[in-house]
Amino acid sequence: MATYEYPRPALTVDCVVFGLDDEGLKVLLIRRGLAPFKGRWALPGGFVRVEETLDEAALRELREETGLKKIFLEQLYTFSAVKRDPRERVISVAYYALIKLSDHRVQAATDADDAAWFRLDAVPELAFDHAEILEVARDRLKGKVRYQPIGFELLPEKFKLSQLQELYEQILGRELDKRNFRKKFLSFGIIQELEEREQGLPGRPARLHRFDAKAYRKLLEQGFHFEL
Amino acid sequence: MATYEYPRPALTVDCVVFGLDDEGLKVLLIRRGLAPFKGRWALPGGFVRVEETLDEAALRELREETGLKKIFLEQLYTFSAVKRDPRERVISVAYYALIKLSDHRVQAATDADDAAWFRLDAVPELAFDHAEILEVARDRLKGKVRYQPIGFELLPEKFKLSQLQELYEQILGRELDKRNFRKKFLSFGIIQELEEREQGLPGRPARLHRFDAKAYRKLLEQGFHFEL
Repeated sequence: MATYEYPRPALTVDCVVFGLDDEGLKVLLIRRGLAPFKGRWALPGGFVRVEETLDEAALRELREETGLKKIFLEQLYTFSAVKRDPRERVISVAYYALIKLSDHRVQAATDADDAAWFRLDAVPELAFDHAEILEVARDRLKGKVRYQPIGFELLPEKFKLSQLQELYEQILGRELDKRNFRKKFLSFGIIQELEEREQGLPGRPARLHRFDAKAYRKLLEQGFHFEL
Repeated sequence: MATYEYPRPALTVDCVVFGLDDEGLKVLLIRRGLAPFKGRWALPGGFVRVEETLDEAALRELREETGLKKIFLEQLYTFSAVKRDPRERVISVAYYALIKLSDHRVQAATDADDAAWFRLDAVPELAFDHAEILEVARDRLKGKVRYQPIGFELLPEKFKLSQLQELYEQILGRELDKRNFRKKFLSFGIIQELEEREQGLPGRPARLHRFDAKAYRKLLEQGFHFEL
């Protein structure tokens, strides 16, 4: 029984998927195959079906439009500016995720013409209010790194401290002091320095590090304050 | 032009308003005047109109159902379990706020039979999934107090450290060690001890304290890690 007979806003989900690879932190976009904004890049997403939860809708749209599966999506925020969609009143629940890019292959599907990863400093003009949604997702990440460690699921098993610092720099959108960053990060006691050094590069090879999974998880639970 | 002609979920907002008074931390509830759950207590809220944003809908419903105005509401989470409303598919965007109870008077209005404040340890059985929404709001508060100071907008201008500790205990839902709490909290440098002592009570009067507004705001911005 429908109890509220007034016009209803339509409801969509949109997904901000951040991925890390050798070139840096990227965001997954699709090229719209349909109007409005046909040909424009946008966040993957679409209309919520009446029989599914928002989490299910987000996972389904992501799979349908980009081929990505089994992603751990977290709800970000629900966007409701009255004119955000030129077609009609559409409210969108945004989700976000952080993945290791090499673990996943993307492919365009259904109503997307193309799907591709973009460096955060080279994001094209986006459809709808997706630039704002992306900004809110970046802000959420910026806030998170002050209270929680990050990197375990994103970096290769053995990594250089410079890779970790680059990850933080890209999330924060600014450069960090190398000595200061290393000193503070090492003080958390969640990474182990390995004997092993990077191979196959000219010059003095950098030492490799690895996360201590147990200490990392404990700190994730406890939280901290990382002045950045 | 409506572009998506499939059945749509209905959309509501629900508000979790926490208020502090001498008796402790409370939540504002309304008694439902209509089915379903007629007579049951519930969070204030209602259907979103097609011409308003979610923020506007939350403020409007709160005003209509409880008389509360000019509340700073923050979006909490969007709830979408398929069977959460027995009438039909309804997705609800929850908001929350923390207010000083003495600054506001509540009164039931429109489709609410009654509006009242309940101590968090004496909340009655709630309609819909509102117990879950309330739990998520409490969890958000629990998380927040670890990274941000709280109390400035809630406590009277001059307060006893025991009042501050009680606020934290009610948010966390457990007792805290008095010496440890005081030592840590004072170390943040955001409260000033006054010469003044509490008046009109038997026994040794407790010393009064006051927040240093400037230091408080600075810490709010910076964040910290309060191990509780």
